[in-house]
Amino acid sequence: MTPQELQALGERVLEAQPFSRFLGARLDRFVEGEAQLSLALKPEFLQQHGRPHGGVLSYLADNALTFAGGSLYGDGLTLEFKINYVKAAKGDTLVARARVESAGRQAAVCRCDLFAVADDGAETLCAVAQGTIMAPAA
Amino acid sequence: MTPQELQALGERVLEAQPFSRFLGARLDRFVEGEAQLSLALKPEFLQQHGRPHGGVLSYLADNALTFAGGSLYGDGLTLEFKINYVKAAKGDTLVARARVESAGRQAAVCRCDLFAVADDGAETLCAVAQGTIMAPAA
Amino acid sequence: MTPQELQALGERVLEAQPFSRFLGARLDRFVEGEAQLSLALKPEFLQQHGRPHGGVLSYLADNALTFAGGSLYGDGLTLEFKINYVKAAKGDTLVARARVESAGRQAAVCRCDLFAVADDGAETLCAVAQGTIMAPAA
Amino acid sequence: MTPQELQALGERVLEAQPFSRFLGARLDRFVEGEAQLSLALKPEFLQQHGRPHGGVLSYLADNALTFAGGSLYGDGLTLEFKINYVKAAKGDTLVARARVESAGRQAAVCRCDLFAVADDGAETLCAVAQGTIMAPAA
Repeated sequence: MTPQELQALGERVLEAQPFSRFLGARLDRFVEGEAQLSLALKPEFLQQHGRPHGGVLSYLADNALTFAGGSLYGDGLTLEFKINYVKAAKGDTLVARARVESAGRQAAVCRCDLFAVADDGAETLCAVAQGTIMAPAA
Repeated sequence: MTPQELQALGERVLEAQPFSRFLGARLDRFVEGEAQLSLALKPEFLQQHGRPHGGVLSYLADNALTFAGGSLYGDGLTLEFKINYVKAAKGDTLVARARVESAGRQAAVCRCDLFAVADDGAETLCAVAQGTIMAPAA
Repeated sequence: MTPQELQALGERVLEAQPFSRFLGARLDRFVEGEAQLSLALKPEFLQQHGRPHGGVLSYLADNALTFAGGSLYGDGLTLEFKINYVKAAKGDTLVARARVESAGRQAAVCRCDLFAVADDGAETLCAVAQGTIMAPAA
Repeated sequence: MTPQELQALGERVLEAQPFSRFLGARLDRFVEGEAQLSLALKPEFLQQHGRPHGGVLSYLADNALTFAGGSLYGDGLTLEFKINYVKAAKGDTLVARARVESAGRQAAVCRCDLFAVADDGAETLCAVAQGTIMAPAA
């Protein structure tokens, strides 16, 4: 698959996820072993203290991990993941960058960093995640 | 706090979370050390294979863990959690039941079981989670 | 396999683990979907503050999870796990009780509770864990 | 603290851990925000298939994470961690490299990569971990 075909495949998969369309996620980058998703923050994504809800961050981590692992297999299924919230996210946009750390035929272990991006482009690390993506059953 | 006051407090907190209102989560049960949240499934909550998106499950796990821990402290902050997706969720409603396993003055460790509930009330375990909830800074 | 055969198989596997013999772990209970391991505490198992080292607890959690999952498959491979240390362990013996929460043909998700047991039999929960055990490759 | 004083402090802490002496762990590197521990493999560290036991890897991950976080606080307490085993470890030595990803006054989130190192120095990534280290209570 050419890089253009892979990017196009990734965008079709994201478009085929009703929940990702519902939130408005974008696939900024999709290459073998890496994926970057971003999400413009809306008022309805917040929790009771005016910060992005943990569930928004965990959605973005889950999906970026799945895309990173899925880039190796054509599709992917998240078996499990873990997330640490490290700083309250401020900014207009959330960005999740995930990468494969190690992969076999059946599963890939991936990590993801989540950033809040301010107007001026300044990034603040707001969460880190790690998880296992399975290849689709043969 | 009486059980009625605790339940009312929990419902106010959930109501104060724009993301929970956006998705339509309900707090079915909120007692000291336990919380049950539920979410009626809508077409926009699915992923590309027609199942609830992992991000919907992780939102519900994150929030149920936070409520369970927060029931001890008046409010709570999720430091981290881990989720294993165990079965594809079928059904009309997702239910997350979380409980405190151990708690100190500053932090509680909680577990959560997530079920898909069918029309006839049959429940299927679809994910299990574990995480750390911090008391608000004094 | 009869319950006696399963217990005997479990004991042979534990005996075949040099690290478990080195530490002195015992398999107290091994039935389909559940395992209990215990470890008598020795002075060489401590950390710098006189408590059992986290690595001793994580060994015991890892192994109890593997046995619980492995009870379904004849053998098992721990793909990943997560552990929360919840109370400083006091006592003479550590006990880890693990159980399968959900299982398919290829993998089981298991949870484990770790207790420190005092002379008088009183148990203190000192860690909780959750992980994925794979069936051996066919 | 000078780099020499920090390294000396780290070595004293490791020496004060009976379990680390029992296994023979070494602190190869200890700077602000980073730690490298290594362990020469002995026959008694194996599991039933002749590979290093997961409990040995989890000990090393737990301790490297604790040292990385503890480098910021003078001492540290591991609250929780997660480990994915990614490749069967071959080689003579295990090396764990941990680093702080984000830190506040009370807690640091750290990641760790574990490698098996062969005679010729070739390294194989065999596990990745992520966890939370708390500063000692004030």
